[in-house]
Amino acid sequence: MSSEIRLTGGAVVTQDAARRVIECGEVAFDPATGKITYAGEVRGGEGDSSGAAGSGRLGAVTDVTGCVVMPGLVNAHTHSGMTPLRGYAEDMNLQDWLAKVRAFEVRLTAEDLRAGLELALVEMLKTGTTTFADMFLWDRRMLESVVTSGMRVLAAPAIFGYDAVGYPAASPSDGRAVLDLTERLAAEFAGDGQIRLAFGPHAPYTCTPELLADVAARAGRLGLPIQIHLSESAPEVDSCLRDYGRTPVAHAAACGIFDHPVLVAHCAHPTDAEIELLAGADAAVAHNPVSNLKLGAGVAPVRRFLDAGVRLGLGTDSVASNNNLDLFEEIKAGILMQRGVHRSPDIVRSGDFLDMATCGGAAAVRFPEVGVLEAGRPADIVILDATGTRATPLYDATSYLAFAASGSADVRDVYVGGRHVVAGSRVTSLDEAAVRERVAHTAARVRRELAATAT
Amino acid sequence: MSSEIRLTGGAVVTQDAARRVIECGEVAFDPATGKITYAGEVRGGEGDSSGAAGSGRLGAVTDVTGCVVMPGLVNAHTHSGMTPLRGYAEDMNLQDWLAKVRAFEVRLTAEDLRAGLELALVEMLKTGTTTFADMFLWDRRMLESVVTSGMRVLAAPAIFGYDAVGYPAASPSDGRAVLDLTERLAAEFAGDGQIRLAFGPHAPYTCTPELLADVAARAGRLGLPIQIHLSESAPEVDSCLRDYGRTPVAHAAACGIFDHPVLVAHCAHPTDAEIELLAGADAAVAHNPVSNLKLGAGVAPVRRFLDAGVRLGLGTDSVASNNNLDLFEEIKAGILMQRGVHRSPDIVRSGDFLDMATCGGAAAVRFPEVGVLEAGRPADIVILDATGTRATPLYDATSYLAFAASGSADVRDVYVGGRHVVAGSRVTSLDEAAVRERVAHTAARVRRELAATAT
Repeated sequence: MSSEIRLTGGAVVTQDAARRVIECGEVAFDPATGKITYAGEVRGGEGDSSGAAGSGRLGAVTDVTGCVVMPGLVNAHTHSGMTPLRGYAEDMNLQDWLAKVRAFEVRLTAEDLRAGLELALVEMLKTGTTTFADMFLWDRRMLESVVTSGMRVLAAPAIFGYDAVGYPAASPSDGRAVLDLTERLAAEFAGDGQIRLAFGPHAPYTCTPELLADVAARAGRLGLPIQIHLSESAPEVDSCLRDYGRTPVAHAAACGIFDHPVLVAHCAHPTDAEIELLAGADAAVAHNPVSNLKLGAGVAPVRRFLDAGVRLGLGTDSVASNNNLDLFEEIKAGILMQRGVHRSPDIVRSGDFLDMATCGGAAAVRFPEVGVLEAGRPADIVILDATGTRATPLYDATSYLAFAASGSADVRDVYVGGRHVVAGSRVTSLDEAAVRERVAHTAARVRRELAATAT
Repeated sequence: MSSEIRLTGGAVVTQDAARRVIECGEVAFDPATGKITYAGEVRGGEGDSSGAAGSGRLGAVTDVTGCVVMPGLVNAHTHSGMTPLRGYAEDMNLQDWLAKVRAFEVRLTAEDLRAGLELALVEMLKTGTTTFADMFLWDRRMLESVVTSGMRVLAAPAIFGYDAVGYPAASPSDGRAVLDLTERLAAEFAGDGQIRLAFGPHAPYTCTPELLADVAARAGRLGLPIQIHLSESAPEVDSCLRDYGRTPVAHAAACGIFDHPVLVAHCAHPTDAEIELLAGADAAVAHNPVSNLKLGAGVAPVRRFLDAGVRLGLGTDSVASNNNLDLFEEIKAGILMQRGVHRSPDIVRSGDFLDMATCGGAAAVRFPEVGVLEAGRPADIVILDATGTRATPLYDATSYLAFAASGSADVRDVYVGGRHVVAGSRVTSLDEAAVRERVAHTAARVRRELAATAT
């Protein structure tokens, strides 16, 4: 026990099966194994020393009085490399937005995308996210950035068809090459605790049924999960019906996608039959409330998903439609939008969305071992400073986390697998200033290029 | 000009008539008069020194490179004294929520309410709000707290009927006494730049038509504005129709309320005729998106208000239905909810909501001189640190403010009338730690009392 690091005196939100919230609790872990050794009431020994709020340290005991201790958050859907596009296309209809984003994206090099990814990693860590699912132009070096950051990712190299054109400069236009790359990376990282791979067919409107069937066959052969966008907007549903005579989830199922583990992004417009299909399959939905609202895509039927037993995660989508990666905002926006649209203040509970952002999301993105604070689990731990105005008074840590907390302002320390990756609100694993500068340069360069072509 | 304080090198969002956003600008003010002397491009002289981002100071020149400079925000509707109720009643239907809140409120003393107010003042200042409209149990000492804080308020002592019972211990049960108090305080603070008074008849379902007519007559005699809740929820509209044969805005108009300057809170369910009435009167609507969503009250018709020319402000409502006072969250939630519900990403623009939170809100709460950065206006200025991940890259300060900024994390300095009330993210005018402790004690005491009565 001597090598244990003990975080004592904070309110501990365990997210375990009993959803225990311990007012004055302790979480301990073994830095050698990266595993939690204890989560519960404060134990005796050095742990009951009463130091100054949130700062006293006695050997391996850290006094976190005044803090809330919770599992690292899980962002179930994003496209991290897109951070150079933050705030670039605003206040326009979806078609103009897509065209403006696309014209920018095609000018991004692999180097730009990696810088964009690293900015996203910094931003996610600083707001308490430790695990994420991501569909983008993943390559070996981008995965290495994630390893360096300390985070965990379910990475899906994006496939925009067998012969995609007009996608980012860094994108292989050959969909088969992306599938092969996915397989190679999956083999390389097999059994890894930080990096897991998924096939990433973008959507039924970019990938042919043959490609989807190819993905399904490969997923079956290799035991890999699939990430796909389905039923984001009503026009997408209409076009899928027109092209294939089926709604998007049903269409993907007909192509064999749901014979394997699947993470569906959005799913704002499912039919009842599709909800049943999702509940019966080894599937999860990544709900992206802010992005769905900002782009006017619609409001996902969260209550119906919950009632049917569909596994749910919570995602930010990319900053191009958000414009940040703070999952605490997503929790609040998600609850608010259900209550407002259905005119019911109890249609969803705060805890439903906290689950989606932790244990539920962890299962959804195929890291079922994280998202819970209990002995034997990886030590993915977030410590929020709950001494500010937003946390006064503090009747209930769940309510604070769902409605009052600011990921940007309140997250103080983050551990992933016992590694202290955010300390005193600073990221220790990446050079934030350098990363910001690289992305700012990318943004300036692409704007110059676009201005030059416009003249 | 030697006494000028010059803030140079930041992106300046003026909110003036041309809505100028200056990429590298300057705002200067005279601390002796508290008035802005200049807002525009950086001028020559010491101002063009290039110090370290956001920290270099040369005499009266402060280099705010890397920052966004904007007018102080206006919270057009809140009940500040309710901060002890933050997070107390969650995840329940409206009736249970009201009962739980009420049982708590009746135990609050005048001392508790003032502590609650001061916590709200600290929280608003730290998130960039400098002016607010508030309906609560205002008394002389609470107004003194606002004077001390440096903020500006349109304070409406709340009237719950001529013979209200069951309201906070501190509340006079005699509505006429509240009306008389309002008149006395208005006379005392006549011409004040920080404190303005309004009559505060709570709502048609708590105030009789006779009381509303009495308020209207007094407002006419004294030239005071009126704050009132109207048309917050559909059941309220139904009950008003049942009781008076008119919808709430029409009913208030029939009682003479709209013959005088009025600030209407909520107005989520107006008829077309009521929107016309609001546009034609000297009236403004305080839109409270987060509270309306959280309580399931509904979605106000912002596009229709804008098209009809209704003056709009933006409010947080109290922390009991929010649970914080960060107006940046309100801007984002307000835009998102319109786009999501109407499935249109361009139904409202970011600038519409930024207007509501600044110049528009200022007019709505009867401080028309604030909310704009231009020469001759009061120096109510907010400086946000835009060097973080959320502001990288920064194409457009408006998009950053609407979608990415965190009031809690990014607001660095706040001036009101040239007084430096937040410096380096710390409030200089009130003792934050002491205020938090007082509210935490109030919360603990009331919980003990309620537990004792339950046994």
